Amino acid sequence: MVNLMGVKVSKVSFDNRLMFTYESKSFPGVNKVAALVRQDLYLVTGFHAGEYTRGCKCKNLIIYGTVDKSDYLDELEERGLIDLEEVRGKWEVYSFQVIDKPLDGVEHAVVIAGSDKRGTIYGLFHLSELLGVSPLVNWNHVLPKKKKNVFLTDEVNTVSKEPSVKYRGFFINDEWPAFGNWATEHFGGINAKCYERVFELLLRLKGNYLWPAMWASNFSMDGPGLESARLADEYGVVMSTSHHEPCMRSGEEYRLLRGENSIYGDAWDFRANRDGIIRFWRDGLIRNKSFENVITLGMRGERDSRILGDDASLKDNIELIRDVLKTQNELIKETVDEDIKNVPRQIVLFSEVEEFFYGDEKTKGLMGDPLLDDVTLILSDNNVGYTRTLPTKEMMDHPGGYGMYYHMDMHGGPYSFKWIGATYLPRVWEQMTQAYEFGVRQIWVTNVGDIGTQELGLSYFLDLAYDIDKWGGTDAGITLEYVNEWAERQFGGMLPLSGRNKAKKILWDYTGLLEKRRHEIMNTWVYHPLHFGEADRILAVSDEILKESVALKKRIADENLSAFISLLYYPACGTANLMKMWILAGRNELFAYQNRIEANDVAEDLDKCVKEDAHLIDEYEEVDGGFYKGFGRSEHVGFINWNEEDNRYPIRHLVYGANSPRMLVSRADDENYMTGLEWCDRPQTWSDMLRPDVDRIEFDLISGSEIPYRYKISTDCSWLEFSSAEGEVSKRERITLSVNKALLSEKITGTFLVEGIGIGSAHVTVEAAPADAPEKLFIENDGYICMEAEHFLESKDTKKGGFKVLSPYGRSGSAIKVFPVTTDFYREKKRPEVTYRFLADEDGEYDVIFDLAPTTPVTFKPEQYIGYAVNGGKIRIINTVRNPDIQFFFSPQWREEARDSVKKVTDTVKLIKGENELRFYGMSPGIVLERILLVRKGIEIPKSYLGPKESYIRGLEEE
Amino acid sequence: MVNLMGVKVSKVSFDNRLMFTYESKSFPGVNKVAALVRQDLYLVTGFHAGEYTRGCKCKNLIIYGTVDKSDYLDELEERGLIDLEEVRGKWEVYSFQVIDKPLDGVEHAVVIAGSDKRGTIYGLFHLSELLGVSPLVNWNHVLPKKKKNVFLTDEVNTVSKEPSVKYRGFFINDEWPAFGNWATEHFGGINAKCYERVFELLLRLKGNYLWPAMWASNFSMDGPGLESARLADEYGVVMSTSHHEPCMRSGEEYRLLRGENSIYGDAWDFRANRDGIIRFWRDGLIRNKSFENVITLGMRGERDSRILGDDASLKDNIELIRDVLKTQNELIKETVDEDIKNVPRQIVLFSEVEEFFYGDEKTKGLMGDPLLDDVTLILSDNNVGYTRTLPTKEMMDHPGGYGMYYHMDMHGGPYSFKWIGATYLPRVWEQMTQAYEFGVRQIWVTNVGDIGTQELGLSYFLDLAYDIDKWGGTDAGITLEYVNEWAERQFGGMLPLSGRNKAKKILWDYTGLLEKRRHEIMNTWVYHPLHFGEADRILAVSDEILKESVALKKRIADENLSAFISLLYYPACGTANLMKMWILAGRNELFAYQNRIEANDVAEDLDKCVKEDAHLIDEYEEVDGGFYKGFGRSEHVGFINWNEEDNRYPIRHLVYGANSPRMLVSRADDENYMTGLEWCDRPQTWSDMLRPDVDRIEFDLISGSEIPYRYKISTDCSWLEFSSAEGEVSKRERITLSVNKALLSEKITGTFLVEGIGIGSAHVTVEAAPADAPEKLFIENDGYICMEAEHFLESKDTKKGGFKVLSPYGRSGSAIKVFPVTTDFYREKKRPEVTYRFLADEDGEYDVIFDLAPTTPVTFKPEQYIGYAVNGGKIRIINTVRNPDIQFFFSPQWREEARDSVKKVTDTVKLIKGENELRFYGMSPGIVLERILLVRKGIEIPKSYLGPKESYIRGLEEE
Repeated sequence: MVNLMGVKVSKVSFDNRLMFTYESKSFPGVNKVAALVRQDLYLVTGFHAGEYTRGCKCKNLIIYGTVDKSDYLDELEERGLIDLEEVRGKWEVYSFQVIDKPLDGVEHAVVIAGSDKRGTIYGLFHLSELLGVSPLVNWNHVLPKKKKNVFLTDEVNTVSKEPSVKYRGFFINDEWPAFGNWATEHFGGINAKCYERVFELLLRLKGNYLWPAMWASNFSMDGPGLESARLADEYGVVMSTSHHEPCMRSGEEYRLLRGENSIYGDAWDFRANRDGIIRFWRDGLIRNKSFENVITLGMRGERDSRILGDDASLKDNIELIRDVLKTQNELIKETVDEDIKNVPRQIVLFSEVEEFFYGDEKTKGLMGDPLLDDVTLILSDNNVGYTRTLPTKEMMDHPGGYGMYYHMDMHGGPYSFKWIGATYLPRVWEQMTQAYEFGVRQIWVTNVGDIGTQELGLSYFLDLAYDIDKWGGTDAGITLEYVNEWAERQFGGMLPLSGRNKAKKILWDYTGLLEKRRHEIMNTWVYHPLHFGEADRILAVSDEILKESVALKKRIADENLSAFISLLYYPACGTANLMKMWILAGRNELFAYQNRIEANDVAEDLDKCVKEDAHLIDEYEEVDGGFYKGFGRSEHVGFINWNEEDNRYPIRHLVYGANSPRMLVSRADDENYMTGLEWCDRPQTWSDMLRPDVDRIEFDLISGSEIPYRYKISTDCSWLEFSSAEGEVSKRERITLSVNKALLSEKITGTFLVEGIGIGSAHVTVEAAPADAPEKLFIENDGYICMEAEHFLESKDTKKGGFKVLSPYGRSGSAIKVFPVTTDFYREKKRPEVTYRFLADEDGEYDVIFDLAPTTPVTFKPEQYIGYAVNGGKIRIINTVRNPDIQFFFSPQWREEARDSVKKVTDTVKLIKGENELRFYGMSPGIVLERILLVRKGIEIPKSYLGPKESYIRGLEEE
Repeated sequence: MVNLMGVKVSKVSFDNRLMFTYESKSFPGVNKVAALVRQDLYLVTGFHAGEYTRGCKCKNLIIYGTVDKSDYLDELEERGLIDLEEVRGKWEVYSFQVIDKPLDGVEHAVVIAGSDKRGTIYGLFHLSELLGVSPLVNWNHVLPKKKKNVFLTDEVNTVSKEPSVKYRGFFINDEWPAFGNWATEHFGGINAKCYERVFELLLRLKGNYLWPAMWASNFSMDGPGLESARLADEYGVVMSTSHHEPCMRSGEEYRLLRGENSIYGDAWDFRANRDGIIRFWRDGLIRNKSFENVITLGMRGERDSRILGDDASLKDNIELIRDVLKTQNELIKETVDEDIKNVPRQIVLFSEVEEFFYGDEKTKGLMGDPLLDDVTLILSDNNVGYTRTLPTKEMMDHPGGYGMYYHMDMHGGPYSFKWIGATYLPRVWEQMTQAYEFGVRQIWVTNVGDIGTQELGLSYFLDLAYDIDKWGGTDAGITLEYVNEWAERQFGGMLPLSGRNKAKKILWDYTGLLEKRRHEIMNTWVYHPLHFGEADRILAVSDEILKESVALKKRIADENLSAFISLLYYPACGTANLMKMWILAGRNELFAYQNRIEANDVAEDLDKCVKEDAHLIDEYEEVDGGFYKGFGRSEHVGFINWNEEDNRYPIRHLVYGANSPRMLVSRADDENYMTGLEWCDRPQTWSDMLRPDVDRIEFDLISGSEIPYRYKISTDCSWLEFSSAEGEVSKRERITLSVNKALLSEKITGTFLVEGIGIGSAHVTVEAAPADAPEKLFIENDGYICMEAEHFLESKDTKKGGFKVLSPYGRSGSAIKVFPVTTDFYREKKRPEVTYRFLADEDGEYDVIFDLAPTTPVTFKPEQYIGYAVNGGKIRIINTVRNPDIQFFFSPQWREEARDSVKKVTDTVKLIKGENELRFYGMSPGIVLERILLVRKGIEIPKSYLGPKESYIRGLEEE
């Protein structure tokens, strides 16, 4: 046939004449996957593909196999119809070819040839993907769009690349109550049946590597027996164990097997019970050696604790670990392979183990120790998604390479997050791309807790690891594309484009909320209920998510509810409803203490949110016949401790109101209020209409009593307008004050009076100015200048690098960062720079606060520098690590920044009245600048979480 | 007749043959009072006394009159039947004689002969009193006990003393909403009809002097016209005006009469409108000159404000006042009496005026100025019942003498208290007796607000002023006697002795609550909800008051409800219910933030209190046909400002509880709790059973969830006993842990475990010791030693004075003070002293905190010293005035102490392990010591309002 361009093409049609080859010499796992793909095709076409027997006639054939494990492929290669050299010997590569007349009697074929077991499997799943089947087809029952006249032409022919990262996988962790309940409900336990579902998910997402559940679960015992491990190997899933479980034995195994009369002794203590522990390890190695594994080395304490306790010296610890490593390497030689280089091994530098690796001035660490030759060094993130140390130049050559243990779910410090997946893709993009640049390419493993609702983040993590060229890079906007593509794949079959676009926005919005603050650590006091309207913005986003999600849900056919609820509705609404709940809780508390009678209404709304939280979980767990039952069960409200212990739901505050009518007059964005009462009124001055971009202010007339009052607003300023000048207030009335700036010729000051009839009068002074301003200068107002980092006016690169804008990114939506990310400009003479210009109202000292992404230093040294200069003065270089005497990872600064998703660095600068200039320089790697705030000394900026709104700058509004 | 002792006695029977004389030459007011007394007698006997006409037969006659104003008296004197020389020429004295055959045809008579108008009136009311009629008979409808066979014999014959204080009266103030509404409701306004009721009350209480209402009321204009002033004079009530209303014109008069075309001008400004103001004053003096007055001199700003504003210098102010005084004296000479000495005048050194009197180093004040010769200098209290400056020795001779303006009601700083009378008699006793000793004997005037519910305090104040020898002295116990007598008089006719005794206790209990904290400034955070059981104690007292009052009320006949409710039930229950409300509010808040599910029940109870508050007011205002309507209307809940503006009722906090069973284990007196949860439990050590007097500790098992849990308490210590060792907790279970100390031979430490089944275990360590201790030594426990001041072990007087125990007194019920109160021991070599001995646990520094009554220095100098020494060391002398650079009366210290009813003086001392001794010395006058607390450095005593419970001292418990 010829295509529209007139070129002759081969073509395979997926009609009722489609067949699949079957070879018994194939890897059994490959054949199993082929069966899954046949089922996928059925979902798309409505036809069950037949099984091809050599010699019979066939219109359209799917031929699949692994190099050197398939007679069909040998034959096609021999006949020159395919070129297996393109894949042979490679890691996880497949060739995907549409050809004509591959075999006698066969007209057209897709030929899928894998370089190895997983190459073939990825090739097979590639077919499903090409036909619009989501990798989540069986995990979330994402039904593909049914199609007629489905075909592929040779235009899709491809040979895949080797994956960017060798081992890509996840860790099922923190498995109670969610994963454990789910597995028990559906499979009777965390057993092979359960894992078969997990393996499929992993492989469809192009992963190959797994740390199994291990809280109260033993992967190599509960299959039953070795069944799970055997099945993993069959599917080509490379098993490993978590960071503190050496020699392929889960931590809980020891608890089960230890005892006074146990052959393994009765102490998890390599000194006191050396023989028992060695025997325990040896038996594990022997048991699992026939499977494809990456073996964990090292030793930590039981249940994820320090091995020697807090009293032991660094030297003690390191010596112990050396002894352990030596022993383990010998055991592996003895049991697995004399040539230990052939055995994939890893050690995880998690938590305190990092220190044992680096050592200190007095004590040499494990770094460079021959015991670790060829062992992959798995580094860790800071538990919330920012990487800790990365390989230095000196370290990069380590033959075993590096890995990264990355948290999308956490049960531990600084806080746990186990409920709805809280991963914001730009954070993963920025951090993991950087890690890759630093040479972390051997193993990527992400802790996904119970997996449920982690699908988006997990998909991206594995896709990024599989093809960093496609999904990494220097443009954060790639994550927008990813979400688009991901949403198309999941919701393409159930929603029209307008609906899918809404779904994409919802995905961004709810993960954006979580980027600012995660569920568990939300509380009454995070966002200020009024200041800078930040709570209003969170509430607006949340309400929008809830409204749009409910509207979308009405358009979803029953059979698609499973995917819709699990992938969008539940995570988005659960998040939005929780954020709303806490915003209302904050308002309720503030309003109650202000005696606003509306506090009682807010308490009722809050109550609805609390009930809705439970309702949403029920809905998720009940949809699709309870398909997700268990996944919603993690505690997630009001954490006080690092975990859920002693957590607390919001308190409802109820007020009585005053015995007589009471007026409160308050800006919508200010907790201070006026009462008009003789002794209590505190007249206010509103200056923000001096800003060129502000010509209206919203304020509220509020009742502090069940008895309403009448009000009257009066002024002798003709340039002030009020949306209402008189009326009655029973709870709250919002008034808009506006100024027609076109009528102003200069700065002007006026007053108005809000009279509560029979109560008193509140006095407000308003300052306003015409809407003109110099170009390209941020303008101080209310004593501060706030600049989004992306709004620099000039940028100067050096030969070695320069700043780029990251967008979307971080709490405020954008940021800047120096690329290439690996270059340390701290000791360079020439540094990239960006320049900000702004007008200050006064000569004098200002606090300057840099909002940075809450990164940790990329080396073990507790230092990460920023540099800036004001008005051409000397560069001020500041170590963002506040207390370099303690390890950053264990510092209060780490905990605080990890919770608040921001690193704040404060300094003092002298400004001059009028135009000033601030230059920000590239310094240490890893620095990401989000915003800069300058506050005149003596001014107290209203308390808030996200900070003031950006200052006005002419020229920006046209962008 | 003869009495039981066989002595011949005269006797007057109050039967149906009783008559009263009537002489038209008598003062009309005297005759009016006689009519009141006839009505009183009717209430007692059931007989209406007839009117005697000279010459007619009469069995029993009441002859009354004023020396030189009665023919009867002249005749009796002439006949030698009475001796008028005993009264003639005296001030307010009466002779009260039972005699036989006074006149032809008259068998027996009571002869009441007054030295003057008021002497006669007091003599007449003395008759009522002797027959058991309460002075509150018409003010509160206190019905006397009906009696048969009533008679008086000559054993009651008496000649009264001159009153201790010349002018004794009160100030009706702060009259809206309470007094104003009451007067309008009953009399159509604050007019002569209304004042007639007030005059009667004043005279029956042996007062003679009044400052009339003046917020929006003009005594000399609203009678109508002068009618109120005329009536006052008729009744012998000496009128004056308040501290800032000179020349017998109320402040509001000027507001009414001023104006552009007014003859008085249009500015309350002695400089700008001198002629107008002078004319205003002159007209007032002329108008009221025919009545008995004490004329106020001086000038303040309108509505109780500074005359010159904050900018004026002291000199400016003093010069202005001099000018004003000179002018006013001249006006008085011109209009009232050329010999100005004859004209009673006063100036009130209230608020900032005190400073104008004393001046400073640079500026001589008004003290000693001839302009003030013969003018009574009225000093003030600190607005809450503690006197400010008192006359120094040098000042004492001032010919005009001194007065005191004393607050039982306040509308102003540091806080307003206008609702239920909040006067605790020992405070009045201590402060006013001291003022008297310092020479304040000319005028006593107390601000009683609306009068309603002030009856007890007002009665005492006026009785004390009338007879300081009887009700003053050096024994605070006299106030117990007073309350007994007062309660007998009010409730004698309605309750049996057991009930009256309960009533007395209730009176003490509710005023005792108010001595600790007044209604308006109670809030959630005054008493700690748990620490040291202080909230429990307040709650227990409050509940007891409520319970007993309700029980008493059931026994009250309908006709007595008016008196019972107004004098006891309403003020006591109103107070107790309000205290309870706030205690519950505090608990509710704490419990909610601790996630205790019982918080919701507490919120319900709190709600009941809020409703009961309104209900009690309604009851008070509805009883007796609305007799007190208006009096209950003052705002009194949750003041934030000095006045009721922006006040707030308690907030109810509602919780949801955890999703799974949750245990909290908490001592009943500690806000810290254990959860038994792995990461949250904070094991506790309980040491108070080391105290010899403690052998039991109460603790609570609390539920943090709607789902109950089962518990089990286990220990291997046989000496620990639990009131319950297992069971279920759905809200809260109280457990008593006890130790049989007889079984202990030495200090012992043990542990027990509270297991929440399925939750976890809380671990408690208990320390206990046998119950023996050395004699007469306070013993440190939990890091502190707390000693009630009255529990000194030795006391050493000097020739000039010594310490005495005051009891009842103050926040803790007792105190010590040096007598005589006027002696300043600061510069004396020999000082009285008391000694405390105590055992300290460790060598080292301790904070020592002296709790003193919140007095102000007795001189204008900002100094008031205490002195103490530890272990024979040097005397430490400390100025209790924290910042002597500002006037004490305007200092934050004043505000804080006035609110909290305590002055805390802190110092640091070195103690030795073992026995120590602290001596406290007499220093400045006015110092009253309540308790001493020693806290080991580094120990943080649980937060509380009243402080820890007293330390153990052997020998005390036997007292």
